[in-house]
Amino acid sequence: MTGHTLNLSFMNPKRHVSLHNYFPFLNWLLNYRRENLTGDMIAGVIVAVMLVPQGMAYAMLAGLPPQVGLYASIAPLFIYGLLGTSTALAVGPVAVMSILTASAIESIGADSLEAMLSISITLALMIGLIQMLMGILRVGFLVNFLSHPVLAGFTSAVAIIIALSQLKHLLGIQIPREKLPHEIVIYAVQHFSETNITVLVLSLLSIGILIFFKKYLKFFLKRLSISERLQIALTKTGPIIVVIFTSALVAIFHLNETSHVSIVGTVPSGLPNLTIPIFDLERWQQLLPFAVTISLVGYMESISVAKSLASRRRQKVDANQELIALGAANLGAAFTGAYPIAGGFARSMVNFSSGANTGLASMITASLMLITVLFFTPLFYFLPNAVLAAIIVVAVSSLIDLKTFVHTWQYSKIEGITFLATFLAVLIVGVETGILIGVGVSLALYLWHTSRPHIAVLGRLGESEEYRNILRHQAYVDPHILALRVDESLYFPNAQFLEEVVLTAIADNPQIRHFVLVCSAVNFIDTSALEILESLAEALENNQISFNLAAVKGPVMDRLAKVGFVDRIGRDHFFLNTHLAFETLK
Amino acid sequence: MTGHTLNLSFMNPKRHVSLHNYFPFLNWLLNYRRENLTGDMIAGVIVAVMLVPQGMAYAMLAGLPPQVGLYASIAPLFIYGLLGTSTALAVGPVAVMSILTASAIESIGADSLEAMLSISITLALMIGLIQMLMGILRVGFLVNFLSHPVLAGFTSAVAIIIALSQLKHLLGIQIPREKLPHEIVIYAVQHFSETNITVLVLSLLSIGILIFFKKYLKFFLKRLSISERLQIALTKTGPIIVVIFTSALVAIFHLNETSHVSIVGTVPSGLPNLTIPIFDLERWQQLLPFAVTISLVGYMESISVAKSLASRRRQKVDANQELIALGAANLGAAFTGAYPIAGGFARSMVNFSSGANTGLASMITASLMLITVLFFTPLFYFLPNAVLAAIIVVAVSSLIDLKTFVHTWQYSKIEGITFLATFLAVLIVGVETGILIGVGVSLALYLWHTSRPHIAVLGRLGESEEYRNILRHQAYVDPHILALRVDESLYFPNAQFLEEVVLTAIADNPQIRHFVLVCSAVNFIDTSALEILESLAEALENNQISFNLAAVKGPVMDRLAKVGFVDRIGRDHFFLNTHLAFETLK
Repeated sequence: MTGHTLNLSFMNPKRHVSLHNYFPFLNWLLNYRRENLTGDMIAGVIVAVMLVPQGMAYAMLAGLPPQVGLYASIAPLFIYGLLGTSTALAVGPVAVMSILTASAIESIGADSLEAMLSISITLALMIGLIQMLMGILRVGFLVNFLSHPVLAGFTSAVAIIIALSQLKHLLGIQIPREKLPHEIVIYAVQHFSETNITVLVLSLLSIGILIFFKKYLKFFLKRLSISERLQIALTKTGPIIVVIFTSALVAIFHLNETSHVSIVGTVPSGLPNLTIPIFDLERWQQLLPFAVTISLVGYMESISVAKSLASRRRQKVDANQELIALGAANLGAAFTGAYPIAGGFARSMVNFSSGANTGLASMITASLMLITVLFFTPLFYFLPNAVLAAIIVVAVSSLIDLKTFVHTWQYSKIEGITFLATFLAVLIVGVETGILIGVGVSLALYLWHTSRPHIAVLGRLGESEEYRNILRHQAYVDPHILALRVDESLYFPNAQFLEEVVLTAIADNPQIRHFVLVCSAVNFIDTSALEILESLAEALENNQISFNLAAVKGPVMDRLAKVGFVDRIGRDHFFLNTHLAFETLK
Repeated sequence: MTGHTLNLSFMNPKRHVSLHNYFPFLNWLLNYRRENLTGDMIAGVIVAVMLVPQGMAYAMLAGLPPQVGLYASIAPLFIYGLLGTSTALAVGPVAVMSILTASAIESIGADSLEAMLSISITLALMIGLIQMLMGILRVGFLVNFLSHPVLAGFTSAVAIIIALSQLKHLLGIQIPREKLPHEIVIYAVQHFSETNITVLVLSLLSIGILIFFKKYLKFFLKRLSISERLQIALTKTGPIIVVIFTSALVAIFHLNETSHVSIVGTVPSGLPNLTIPIFDLERWQQLLPFAVTISLVGYMESISVAKSLASRRRQKVDANQELIALGAANLGAAFTGAYPIAGGFARSMVNFSSGANTGLASMITASLMLITVLFFTPLFYFLPNAVLAAIIVVAVSSLIDLKTFVHTWQYSKIEGITFLATFLAVLIVGVETGILIGVGVSLALYLWHTSRPHIAVLGRLGESEEYRNILRHQAYVDPHILALRVDESLYFPNAQFLEEVVLTAIADNPQIRHFVLVCSAVNFIDTSALEILESLAEALENNQISFNLAAVKGPVMDRLAKVGFVDRIGRDHFFLNTHLAFETLK
């Protein structure tokens, strides 16, 4: 059976782009199947139940009023439902985006709530534009350069920063802003006596309930004879139950007055206003580094969960269309008074396992959030801030990933150092600069690695026509012929290394009369490498050593001929394979 | 004859480092051979004859007084002579470093000559420290990332900027600073009537003589029966002859008074003062981006000429020791009131072809420059600035390299665009930012390239045990087995691409039951790729597809075993080669 029975379109990532690629909802909406509806509805409802408390909590994490988190759960979800290629990704406010937004707002130094809101919608607008542009330019591959150790180090450090930022709410004490992580801990210990005991009890109670729902409830539910889907749904109701229960406690016992429990207070109801971000060049310049970092981090978080979920159902996501969809969703956030969003890990997992089949699930969630904003905000009046903090802390606690560090360190010291450098830089220098340092470190290590390609000295295997690496095989070399095989395309990062190796080799081995560059692994030669080959040709000529190339691939040969390199070297110095070169030269 | 007859130390760039590596002069000084002396002396003298006018001219280009250029030709040359590994590199003031220094000084906005001198020595100090640090950390490979199109685009644009900056001296008119290149041209055309005719005549005369010496004199000298070395020496006397001749003209006819020809005036004589750069954190922060760029550009210029010259004599240069030597030479410049230096292309060529054999040539040049500074500076009183400008313009004119652009464009459109982007960015945005944009563009294109490794679908060649790329060979595939060979190590830039290809392949081909990853070209798997392999294993499991690896190399296998991946996949899913995998799976 020949290769033609395989659909090989996966080999060529430049596919035909149709309207359906840019508007994926055309695929599912026009052919919506009835049997998908139940899954979409159940998933939509469960995600909304999670999203109400999370939205408010993450807005608080970003330093914004709770309704902003709810707004961020409406328009962006509708838009992503239309444009996203993942059937299960649940976008909206997420912890990491929220702390990054807080850090951007802090760096600008907003002095009023209005200024903070203006910064957060400007940021959402910029992120939306950057992500859409990346999607249109098809440069989503750039996030590959957030390597695993960098991401893990970043996430762990950010989770610690997030958890510490909530300490003041959990204890009910005032901790001055702009403290470094270890200073927060020291401050909290020194001022522990100021703790509001009622708040602390509420915090611990909430954390206890949340952990119970998250980790242990499933063991009890397993014994009941209810459907697995209902079991999953019930385990996700922890946050909303904690919210209802503690709000009721505060309302009944007037804890906000008698015990000074800090509460959410009035959450404005009604539709979000249409907001139009103002264009202010200076402000945009200040925010640009933040916007770029947050765009990449948000995309990275979203695409990794989207890919992982799609693969479980043998579906695909289109990375560049995901960028466009996330970008559009962020634009939606910008124009509806919200703040930057991304695809959340936990909510997407729930969306998936509760049966989301199409973007409709997202839209059902959005509709429920809209109803919440219209009618139910008064219910959150007595909600203690400590409970929102507890929700945040429990959510991010699983992100502190020391296991990955140990794992990475065992596997490769260099990558362990990258993890540690990112982790410490984020904790000490700050989230944005920290991740840039991490990327810088990993990129520098990568470039170092790539600038030293594998080069083998070839010798003949017995009397065969095979020539192999003399360090691995018992192969024979002719003392006057040096044959090197470079196991990499030749381009600017590695061309100089090749030159150095060759020049050192001929300086160290004066008996060499012929040099053969075996190009069997060379798919491409760029002009920097071409320049090096030309200077190599000159150097060899000056030393009366002949320069030969063997096993040059067709397309490479065509290019070399076009720029005159083949004539420069002489066509008789190009050999079809290593054996022919040796036979001719000896 | 086995491979052991080859000296294979070139395969392992981590050599034994001895005292001689750090102090290369120990190699030649302790064993100085008499027959080297003539060459060293002649070369030393000829380079000094070139360096006197060039030094003053380049100092003017940097916006500094002429003696600074002479100072930059003393201590740095002594130091390089001791520490450099190139026998022919002639360091000192060079055009590109001078214009970069001018641009750094301008960006800081110095208001007095003293402030300018303080900036230039601080810059030399920082460059010295950066280069030495790079040498000690052995990160010289970083300059590989200044690819050929970036360097060529940069050099061409800088040459144009330099030439235009001298227009005011050549015409004897005032052109306001901080004009963009095209504005300078427009301004000069509009104010052409203000041209000082005497100055213009001197300029054209000087340019004519310089071009005659540079290009045509050798044809006349060839007919004379004098040694080739003397011929080379004579062709290099153009600048000094122009300097003497025009100075005499000005002095005799009092052109500075009668025709307002602007002259160099008093050049202070005597030893340079010992200068101690002040440490000012804010100033250092401002200068840091300039210092980094200039360090890299200076090193790049120096190492490329040093390597090229060394290879002609089958000698080697040690890239990291060169960084240390250049760094030390720049420190020497910082402490003797000079400004940043590098190895000059033209002077090094002359040094080489006039017979420089050891670092002694450099020291002879330095001694002659010292004598010049001590005794001969009054001779330059009547030297017209226009003549120095003519020397600069003729020197840089050969750097405008449109041939390379055409060449590059023909060879590869993408690299042509990189050239053009760098060229235009340098002209429009400025030299430092321009080169950074160029490096960014080339790096982004490289990363794009490297993030899509070559992946082949393998099929069986007839009834053989060979499995090859089905797109190139008439090979047969089993419809239930997908075997992919990745021709690259697996690490973070390309791991996601592999995952995407595999997931798309299994989504597009539902009949696949077994997946084989052929790792014959995989030398290394980093943790990001390991993570991807683990998620791939999970995705394949969810789709009831078996995950197999074939031809995994020993060291890679050891690591995979250590982190439990081998057990995770199952040891029976690892095959020695592709054939065994196919035989077992079908």
